[in-house]
Amino acid sequence: MPEKVLIYSRFPKALMVRIGERYELFDAAGKPPNQNFSTEQLSDIRAMITAGGTPLHADIIDLMPKLGAVVCYGTGYDGVDLAALAKRGIVLGHSPGANAASVADIAMTLMLAATRRLLVADDYVRSGSWAGAKPSPMMRPQAGMPGRRIGVYGMGEIGRKIAARAAAFETEVGYFSRSRHDVPYQYFPTLDALAEWCSVLMIAVRAGSDTHHAVDANILKKLGKDGYVVNIARGSVIDQQALIAALTDQTIAGAGLDVYAKEPHAPDALTALPNVVLSPHLGGHTLESHVAMQDCVMANLEAYFAGRPLPYGVKLG
Amino acid sequence: MPEKVLIYSRFPKALMVRIGERYELFDAAGKPPNQNFSTEQLSDIRAMITAGGTPLHADIIDLMPKLGAVVCYGTGYDGVDLAALAKRGIVLGHSPGANAASVADIAMTLMLAATRRLLVADDYVRSGSWAGAKPSPMMRPQAGMPGRRIGVYGMGEIGRKIAARAAAFETEVGYFSRSRHDVPYQYFPTLDALAEWCSVLMIAVRAGSDTHHAVDANILKKLGKDGYVVNIARGSVIDQQALIAALTDQTIAGAGLDVYAKEPHAPDALTALPNVVLSPHLGGHTLESHVAMQDCVMANLEAYFAGRPLPYGVKLG
Repeated sequence: MPEKVLIYSRFPKALMVRIGERYELFDAAGKPPNQNFSTEQLSDIRAMITAGGTPLHADIIDLMPKLGAVVCYGTGYDGVDLAALAKRGIVLGHSPGANAASVADIAMTLMLAATRRLLVADDYVRSGSWAGAKPSPMMRPQAGMPGRRIGVYGMGEIGRKIAARAAAFETEVGYFSRSRHDVPYQYFPTLDALAEWCSVLMIAVRAGSDTHHAVDANILKKLGKDGYVVNIARGSVIDQQALIAALTDQTIAGAGLDVYAKEPHAPDALTALPNVVLSPHLGGHTLESHVAMQDCVMANLEAYFAGRPLPYGVKLG
Repeated sequence: MPEKVLIYSRFPKALMVRIGERYELFDAAGKPPNQNFSTEQLSDIRAMITAGGTPLHADIIDLMPKLGAVVCYGTGYDGVDLAALAKRGIVLGHSPGANAASVADIAMTLMLAATRRLLVADDYVRSGSWAGAKPSPMMRPQAGMPGRRIGVYGMGEIGRKIAARAAAFETEVGYFSRSRHDVPYQYFPTLDALAEWCSVLMIAVRAGSDTHHAVDANILKKLGKDGYVVNIARGSVIDQQALIAALTDQTIAGAGLDVYAKEPHAPDALTALPNVVLSPHLGGHTLESHVAMQDCVMANLEAYFAGRPLPYGVKLG
């Protein structure tokens, strides 16, 4: 009999095929599991798979008395109530670094598209404005990459990959993180100092209570009217209302966003802006990063059911 | 009395301010100069500035009997009738490398945007499809950068900068050019072999009769259904009809184009496609590359009027 695993978040079925070959999956599809499954069914569940950003509190966890492992698909686990897990002795797994290159690539894509105004450019061609030689203030030359100061907030695996890619564009790279790392980039002791220095702020920090709204009106003002912000981490790191205000009144020049305060919703005030590039949280969404994330999920589940420590575990408390 | 210089192509006035402070400019604004200027006025012109891709033949050149220098704004000079210049002993100048970083950056922007389907993604967010969880075949995960084979066609300054940037994305880089260069990338002896090997073909070769339609239906077929082509060189290097056919019937996966067969026109068959990213020949269009190109133009004009060889000259014949 295969072990029973609950799928808590809504995932495309294609992502779960490999896992479904090994385990009996109970797909809650983003709803409270007791809507689709009986108390008896839930009492057999010993492990669950979730998206790290999805809120997961004691009320859900306690529907499954035998639950012993929560495995996040991806690197983040900011939605998971760690105290509730610790209280019940439930272990937590994730997929550290599995999607780092894919996410770093989206950060670069958003930065280049925002600073070179790619969406406006594409529309300028498709609409016939180029052929008609229509003047377009948005198409005026902008500063390019060489010599630009790229500030990376967070120097984990994703931050390092962003920094390495940005450096290849002949930029200067600086960073802020809680501690100094052994990397060839200028360290700034505060986010304020980094924002004052850089012209593009790349947010690659782990979400949590200590980074909630860390990028606020004050930081955006320090970026300045030629400044850009790119967020591929979590929506919670930016004060989204302050960002919309800064973009609207051109306190900053533009933004590239893969994450939002309340996904999958991007407010109208944001989607109406021409100086933003928006993607639907697809940073980790490449074929090879899905394979790598699935590898981590499978390895975590296998270890858990065999009574071994998780190979990709998160230390709780 | 300042020297008289004809501006042949249509350039935004802002680009010519610095040059206008030093020389008396006669702006033909893209029309035959004898439409706006008298025979007498044209007889005083000793130098002209043009865009290298704009056709410039003996009929125009011979309107200016004292013309001694043609200076291209940018690196290309494929529109200039070199034989007509040589016949009259007119020297040719350009701006080699001045826009290389800016053009290489657009190549990367187009590659990343095409392979990660950025335009579709942005529209998916803005249209509300993401919030409505609408299925979208175009949003399925694609192969990312790590391990991708990037083929660079042409290994001049722009090709080298594209290769260095692409390598930072953990890709494999190969190239084809007339001769092998001292670069750390795999050399392919033919364009066929490069296209067979790579999944993204980056066109960075100088336009000319030897590269006209070098990327044809055969090369596109070798790229294959997961292949992409990015062109930041000149429209003439690709057989545009063959490209449109290959994109339409999905012989290749997509394309990123900054240049077209007949600029500023992009055919409807191209602008209707969802699997292309289009920009209006803005590769060299950054603040610092304009300054660098203007530096070259000024240095070339100054040398010419002082009777010295052009510092940024092209050898004719």
